[in-house]
Amino acid sequence: MGQRLWWERDDLGYRNGRLYFGRRDLAQFVRSAGTPVFVYNCERVRDNLSRLAANLKKAGVEFKIFYALKANRYLPLVAYLKLTGRCGVDVCSPAELLLARQVGFHEEEITYTGTSVADEDLACLQRHPGVHVNCDAISTIKRLGARCPGRTIGIRINPRLGAGYNQALRYAGDKATKFGIYQERFQEALDTARAYDLQVKTLHFHIGSGYLTPDIATLDDILNRCHWFLDRCSEIDTLDIGGGLGVPLVEGHSPLDLARWAEVIAGHARPRGLTIHLEPGDFLVKDAGALIVQVNTVEDKGNTKFIGVNAGFNIHSAAAYYNVPFIVAPLASSASDPPQRVTVAGNINEAIDLLAEDILLPPIREGDYLALLNAGGYGSSCSSNHCMRGAFAEYLIVD
Amino acid sequence: MGQRLWWERDDLGYRNGRLYFGRRDLAQFVRSAGTPVFVYNCERVRDNLSRLAANLKKAGVEFKIFYALKANRYLPLVAYLKLTGRCGVDVCSPAELLLARQVGFHEEEITYTGTSVADEDLACLQRHPGVHVNCDAISTIKRLGARCPGRTIGIRINPRLGAGYNQALRYAGDKATKFGIYQERFQEALDTARAYDLQVKTLHFHIGSGYLTPDIATLDDILNRCHWFLDRCSEIDTLDIGGGLGVPLVEGHSPLDLARWAEVIAGHARPRGLTIHLEPGDFLVKDAGALIVQVNTVEDKGNTKFIGVNAGFNIHSAAAYYNVPFIVAPLASSASDPPQRVTVAGNINEAIDLLAEDILLPPIREGDYLALLNAGGYGSSCSSNHCMRGAFAEYLIVD
Repeated sequence: MGQRLWWERDDLGYRNGRLYFGRRDLAQFVRSAGTPVFVYNCERVRDNLSRLAANLKKAGVEFKIFYALKANRYLPLVAYLKLTGRCGVDVCSPAELLLARQVGFHEEEITYTGTSVADEDLACLQRHPGVHVNCDAISTIKRLGARCPGRTIGIRINPRLGAGYNQALRYAGDKATKFGIYQERFQEALDTARAYDLQVKTLHFHIGSGYLTPDIATLDDILNRCHWFLDRCSEIDTLDIGGGLGVPLVEGHSPLDLARWAEVIAGHARPRGLTIHLEPGDFLVKDAGALIVQVNTVEDKGNTKFIGVNAGFNIHSAAAYYNVPFIVAPLASSASDPPQRVTVAGNINEAIDLLAEDILLPPIREGDYLALLNAGGYGSSCSSNHCMRGAFAEYLIVD
Repeated sequence: MGQRLWWERDDLGYRNGRLYFGRRDLAQFVRSAGTPVFVYNCERVRDNLSRLAANLKKAGVEFKIFYALKANRYLPLVAYLKLTGRCGVDVCSPAELLLARQVGFHEEEITYTGTSVADEDLACLQRHPGVHVNCDAISTIKRLGARCPGRTIGIRINPRLGAGYNQALRYAGDKATKFGIYQERFQEALDTARAYDLQVKTLHFHIGSGYLTPDIATLDDILNRCHWFLDRCSEIDTLDIGGGLGVPLVEGHSPLDLARWAEVIAGHARPRGLTIHLEPGDFLVKDAGALIVQVNTVEDKGNTKFIGVNAGFNIHSAAAYYNVPFIVAPLASSASDPPQRVTVAGNINEAIDLLAEDILLPPIREGDYLALLNAGGYGSSCSSNHCMRGAFAEYLIVD
């Protein structure tokens, strides 16, 4: 193969023309389960977790990591995360909370960060008094307080600033978003908490999904804004910076500079003696997962060469709905012929069902297998049975 | 209530301040099943079917209707459609084909219109020789022909023109789409069919999703383009015009003028003695379905009044992903206070999870119920368990 492709890593890449993930030839999962099949590599998840922890530790900040369960709740993977002992989980619904408990996470290892919280959701939280709840509305504070006076809570604020892979994935900005409490109502939120004897111990915010090194300045801006809130509530001892850390999507993207990221965070947290909570979801699993599909159709239509495959945007919606591209890699690569410009199309009867548009691939034949890389998060967990094309398998590479 | 709202119909509207669908007070389904709950009204489905049929009949054209199953496969509803005896079904995957058979549709009542068709899909079609297959790629023709020589098929063409509620829902246009065979390869498609002794009896196209009266001109243009194809294959006796018929989404939209629509179609079909096939999905069920949700949070955030509810875009994605708005109607309406400008937000932790943006509603309180109208299609059938918030109930109003 000669030179490495830009996305190849020690644990992911070609050996003798075959795509390996960890120590596994990906073709073995196809032989075992057919396609479409998701494959997740524990080693990469652990490595992502380790890099986060190592950089925060080096920056001298106290921290706890809560994996955002909604990114991927494949049970063996969640069990693996519990067994590492390195993180808790962040959940956003009663069902997610129960799943986390069922996998073995203790209440104290669980944070609940929901939105549009219903009374039924609060009833579940009442049954789990050790779970830390981040409230994103005064309405939630009021109704939680009425049920659970004296409880410790976090308040999610809306910092009016966001960052992410693109606009759809920024969770705060000039346009009002549904998340969190704005500055002008923060005092009212604190007063409401006090009226129910709730102890506000955490300040929470979430930037968006997919911020990279150039966005660290935005994170710094948001952290600067946090001081105004922290000054108004001396009880707060924890700053929850949510998730949203991104990974390189295309050639030219640099990995998030975690050293600088940790220093920026520490610069705000250390002087105040704050513990940092963070809720990475996609960051831990996205580049640890591949979705393997089979090519069934290669055909020129109009001015485009379409590669039709046996899965659609219902299995993974990142490209079609969020304009977040996959890296597409054939399982077998001979690399003799020059690459061709192609569009990879799914098998759902909608025009937007494209898995990759206008990319370069080596010549592809019907029957070939393609791995969609960066598919470990928000795939299976939010897949649908649209067109009754919802079937897939999942594998965990443990060793 | 005095004057009717723009969307009220004989079978849908307020009586003494309570929202009725058919003869049912919608609140009764909430009492029975809680929320979120989809309610579908058979009477409206039958009425939509009847108006299609009556107008085509009046225009003097032979026709058959195949309900596009992917729009809504709630089994009692599909069973109802079978029992009307007025339509077959169009399916797009082996699982949909089997479901249609299981509900009682005969092979001869089923058309299969798929894309990125795999060999496994063809194996299923081989087991169902009476199902009519519309091929949208030369690759499909070739592989179907190798398995089932002598079979009757349709060829889906790409007319390079489309229409629909918006760009994401147009299925052909200047930019190449994955659907159908373009003019420049049509002869090759016919030659391929002949090589396998396949009988090409149907010419198929699909415009997009959601065309209304102003788009009938585009339909006419496409039908004009069809003659070039028809001239090249004298065996063709059927023109399948797909689906995509729209319904009014907002005040000011007029219902599709079905009389004119049918005349335009007849104008092309009658002189050639063609039978018309059509595949309405959403048109039959969209305005026959409501999704009822409960308000749990009413809160001003930034400059916006957010109405938080207990369902999200994972249950129905039309508004969030396709910019196709719902009509939002409170189950109980006193209509005394002036309306307020609000945004209805779901309970999924994504910024785009808004069910209706910047709409006028009477004052809403926490605990109230809202019906999202025009929710009968592409809701339950493509819902996901994102955030493990995927639970809902479904009801059919039969009488």
